[in-house]
Amino acid sequence: MARESGLDCIAKFPNTSLQVKELFVDDDNNKKVGSAAKTIILSSQSLPEMDDNDNDDDDQQGVNRGVSLQFRDRIMVLPMDAQVSPSRLKSCRSSDSAEKSEDFMATKNAESFSRLHVKEIALESEQAVNGELIKLQYSPPSPTIENHGVSNGVALKVPGWYVDIEDDWPGEAHLYKVEKVLFRGKSKYQDLFVFQSSGHGKVVVLNGDVQLTEKDEFAYQEMLTHLPLCSIPNPKKVLLIGGGDGGILREISRHASVEHIDICEIDTMVIDMYRQFFPEIAVGYQDPRVNLHIGDGIEFLKSAPQGDYDTVILDAFQCMGSEAEQLAGGSLLELVARALQPGGVMASQAQCLWHKEFSVADAIASCRRTFKGSVSYAWSPVPAYIGGMVGFMLCSTEGPAVDFKHPINPLNPKHYGVARGPPKFYNSEVHTAAFCLPSFAYEV
Amino acid sequence: MARESGLDCIAKFPNTSLQVKELFVDDDNNKKVGSAAKTIILSSQSLPEMDDNDNDDDDQQGVNRGVSLQFRDRIMVLPMDAQVSPSRLKSCRSSDSAEKSEDFMATKNAESFSRLHVKEIALESEQAVNGELIKLQYSPPSPTIENHGVSNGVALKVPGWYVDIEDDWPGEAHLYKVEKVLFRGKSKYQDLFVFQSSGHGKVVVLNGDVQLTEKDEFAYQEMLTHLPLCSIPNPKKVLLIGGGDGGILREISRHASVEHIDICEIDTMVIDMYRQFFPEIAVGYQDPRVNLHIGDGIEFLKSAPQGDYDTVILDAFQCMGSEAEQLAGGSLLELVARALQPGGVMASQAQCLWHKEFSVADAIASCRRTFKGSVSYAWSPVPAYIGGMVGFMLCSTEGPAVDFKHPINPLNPKHYGVARGPPKFYNSEVHTAAFCLPSFAYEV
Repeated sequence: MARESGLDCIAKFPNTSLQVKELFVDDDNNKKVGSAAKTIILSSQSLPEMDDNDNDDDDQQGVNRGVSLQFRDRIMVLPMDAQVSPSRLKSCRSSDSAEKSEDFMATKNAESFSRLHVKEIALESEQAVNGELIKLQYSPPSPTIENHGVSNGVALKVPGWYVDIEDDWPGEAHLYKVEKVLFRGKSKYQDLFVFQSSGHGKVVVLNGDVQLTEKDEFAYQEMLTHLPLCSIPNPKKVLLIGGGDGGILREISRHASVEHIDICEIDTMVIDMYRQFFPEIAVGYQDPRVNLHIGDGIEFLKSAPQGDYDTVILDAFQCMGSEAEQLAGGSLLELVARALQPGGVMASQAQCLWHKEFSVADAIASCRRTFKGSVSYAWSPVPAYIGGMVGFMLCSTEGPAVDFKHPINPLNPKHYGVARGPPKFYNSEVHTAAFCLPSFAYEV
Repeated sequence: MARESGLDCIAKFPNTSLQVKELFVDDDNNKKVGSAAKTIILSSQSLPEMDDNDNDDDDQQGVNRGVSLQFRDRIMVLPMDAQVSPSRLKSCRSSDSAEKSEDFMATKNAESFSRLHVKEIALESEQAVNGELIKLQYSPPSPTIENHGVSNGVALKVPGWYVDIEDDWPGEAHLYKVEKVLFRGKSKYQDLFVFQSSGHGKVVVLNGDVQLTEKDEFAYQEMLTHLPLCSIPNPKKVLLIGGGDGGILREISRHASVEHIDICEIDTMVIDMYRQFFPEIAVGYQDPRVNLHIGDGIEFLKSAPQGDYDTVILDAFQCMGSEAEQLAGGSLLELVARALQPGGVMASQAQCLWHKEFSVADAIASCRRTFKGSVSYAWSPVPAYIGGMVGFMLCSTEGPAVDFKHPINPLNPKHYGVARGPPKFYNSEVHTAAFCLPSFAYEV
C-alpha cells in the first residue's frame, strides 16, 4: 500500500511521471531475492482515466491492487534481468521491448517540464501472481526535477537537483539540490515551479528560469525599489508593473512619503502562490496604500492618465539587453515615460554585465531615445542569477534633474512599513557603489 | 583499429578510465545485430604494464588486437544482455558478476578525479571469436568529466559537463560545458585539471575547485593586486606568496614604482601549465623585476629580513573564513606582518559575503589581532566562484596610516608593464565601491 505521497504527488501534477529505478522482489523475510525490473515509469498522463472501472484485465488488476489503481494502465516495465522471469510480472503491462519503452521516454523528454521524480515514494505491494505471493518494493529513488532546458543541444538531468540552464547563457548551468517539491502550476501565462532547496531556502522557477531564492531575493527587491525611490524627493504615487510576488511592494512600503501604490499583475497564480508559500515576500500586499489591478501592464499604462506617477517600477519583463528586446520594449518605454511626471523615474531590470552580448553603452543609448532626463546603469550581486549579478536601468523624464548615483532621499532603515525588519541589502553606500562599473563595461 | 585519440588520451592521464556505454556487435554490412555489453571500462591504471610481452592468454590477445594491446588487462565487461551470449565475448576478461564490476566502479569513485570520459573515442575492432568474425564498435560516448565532488552525500556526474561542487557550499553546483580536456596532472602538492569550456574559455580546476576561467580571471587578479598597491604611495618591493599562474605578476607589472618583485610558489607544475596554456596570464613572468623562488611560502617568510616589503600579496591559501582557518592562519599573518615595513600592506583572498558561516566582523577582528594599522574587507564579482563574488582582506601594519577605501596611488591605465592592454576591471571607482557592503554584512 502506498505509505507516502509519491503517487499523490504525481496525481497533482499533470504531465509528470515517476521513475522507480529498481523494483525488488523479496521473500517472506524481506530479503531481496531478485531484481524485477530495471525501470518503471508511472505516468500521470492517464489521470482522466483514473475513475475508469472497466476492469477488463484481471491479471492487471492483481497488480493494480498492490500499486495503485489510478495508474494501472500506465505501468511500463523496461527490460528485466535474468533473475526474475517475465512471467512473474506478466500481470504488469510490460512493454514488448526495450525499444518501445525508450520511445515512450523519448516522447516524454520532448515535453517541457515533463517528468517529475519524487523523493518520498515508498510503496509496497503484496500480490498473488501465478498462485505465488510476492512482495514488490519500490526503492526510494532520488528526487529528480528535470528542467529539460537545452543548452548547446544538451539536455541536463541530474537526479535530486534542479538544473537552471538558460539559452542566454550557453555552456553554463546552476544546480540546486531539491529537498521537496512545493508547488507546480501552469497558468494561462506561465509555468511556475517551487521547491524547497537544501541551500537556498525556497526557490521559485518561472518558465524554466530561477526567479528568486529565499536566500538572496532581498538584494534584487531592495535595489530595484530603493534605487529609484531614494533618487527623487518625496515620492508619492508609484506604479509597479508585474512584481506579483509582493517583494517590491514590501520595499515600497518602507517609504513613508508614498501615498498611493498601484500594482498591475497579469497572473493571479503568482500572487496566490506567493501568499501561500512566501508570506514574508507577499507581506507587501498588506500595505493599505496598495491597489491591486489584475491585467496586462501595457493596457494599464495605456489607460493611465498622463503624468500621473512619480515612479514606475518594471518587474515583469525580461532583461532589456539585446537589440531586439530594446526595440520591442520601445513602445513600452514610451508608455512608461508618458505616465510619469516631469522628472519622474523608472527602474527596470537590465542585463548582467558579464553577458557577452550586453553593452551598457547600447542599453543607455536605447533608453535615451525615450527618456530625456537621466539614464544610468547600475548592478547588484544576486548569486541566484547566472552571472552572479543583475543589472538595472534607471531613467528619468525631462524635468527636475535626477542624479541617480547620489541619493537625495535616504531610506530610513527604522521605518519598516509592512516589512518585518530593516533592509538586508540596501544602504546609501551600496546605492552609490551600484553605479560604479568595471572598466570593461565602458568599452563600446 | 583506433581511429581517434580516445585511448591516446587516457594513456596520457594516469589514474583515469574511459567508459563506453554500449558495445555493439554488427554483421558484415555494419548492421547492428546486438548489444554486446552495457558498459566497458578501460582504465589507464595499467600503463606501466603496457610493454608487457607476456602473452599468456591467447584468447585475450584476440581482443587486444582489436581494441588496444596497452589495455588488454584492464578491459572489464559489465553484465551483458540476452542478445549476445557471454561466450561471444569470452575473449574479453569479463567480470564474474555485476557485483564485481560495481565493486570496481565503487573503488574508482572513491578516488578524486578518477575517471575521465573522453568524447573523441571511436574505436572499431574486427576479431575472430569461436571461428566467427565479429566487428566491435564503440559508440562515441558523451564526454564526461567527473569531479566526484560530494555534497550532501550526492556525487554529481553530468556527461559532457564539469561539475564544480564544493563542500563549503552544500546544495549548490556550477556546471561548465566541456569542449576539450587540455591538461590533467598531479604534482606532489595538488591536482590540476584544465579544459576548454564552451562558454568561459579555458578553465583551471585546482584540487576539485574551479580556480579561474579565462572569461573573468582578470577581476580577481586585478583587484587583489591593485587594492593594496594603489592604497600606499610609491610601492617598491612586493612579495607574492603563491600566484604561480603569473596573473598577479602581470598586474604588479603595471606599477612603475615597483623595483623588485619576489614570488614564492611551491608547485612548478602550476607554472609550467600556465606558461603552456595561458600565455596571457603567465606573461607576468616576463617582467624583469620578477624573482621566482620555488618553495614553501611559510619558510620563505621565515627567512625574509624583517620589514623588507611594502606589500605582501597572498594568493596561495583558501579563504580566511572560518574560525579554524583564521587560527591556522594566525602564525602566517604574524610572519607576513613581520616581513612588512611599518605602514606596509597585505592583501589576501577572503570568504564570500554570501557564505552562511562567514562574518565580516569576525574576519576583521581576527586580522586586527595581528595587524595594528588598518583592516578592511572588500569584495569583487567573480562569476566563476560559487556565490558569484570573492572577498579580500586588506591589512596594514602599524606606521603611516592607510585608508584602503580611498586610493592615494591611482593606477595609470596607460602603463601596461608586461600586460598586453589596460586593466579590464580595476579603476578607482570600483576600488572604492569594493569596500561598500550590503547591510547584512554588518550584522554581528
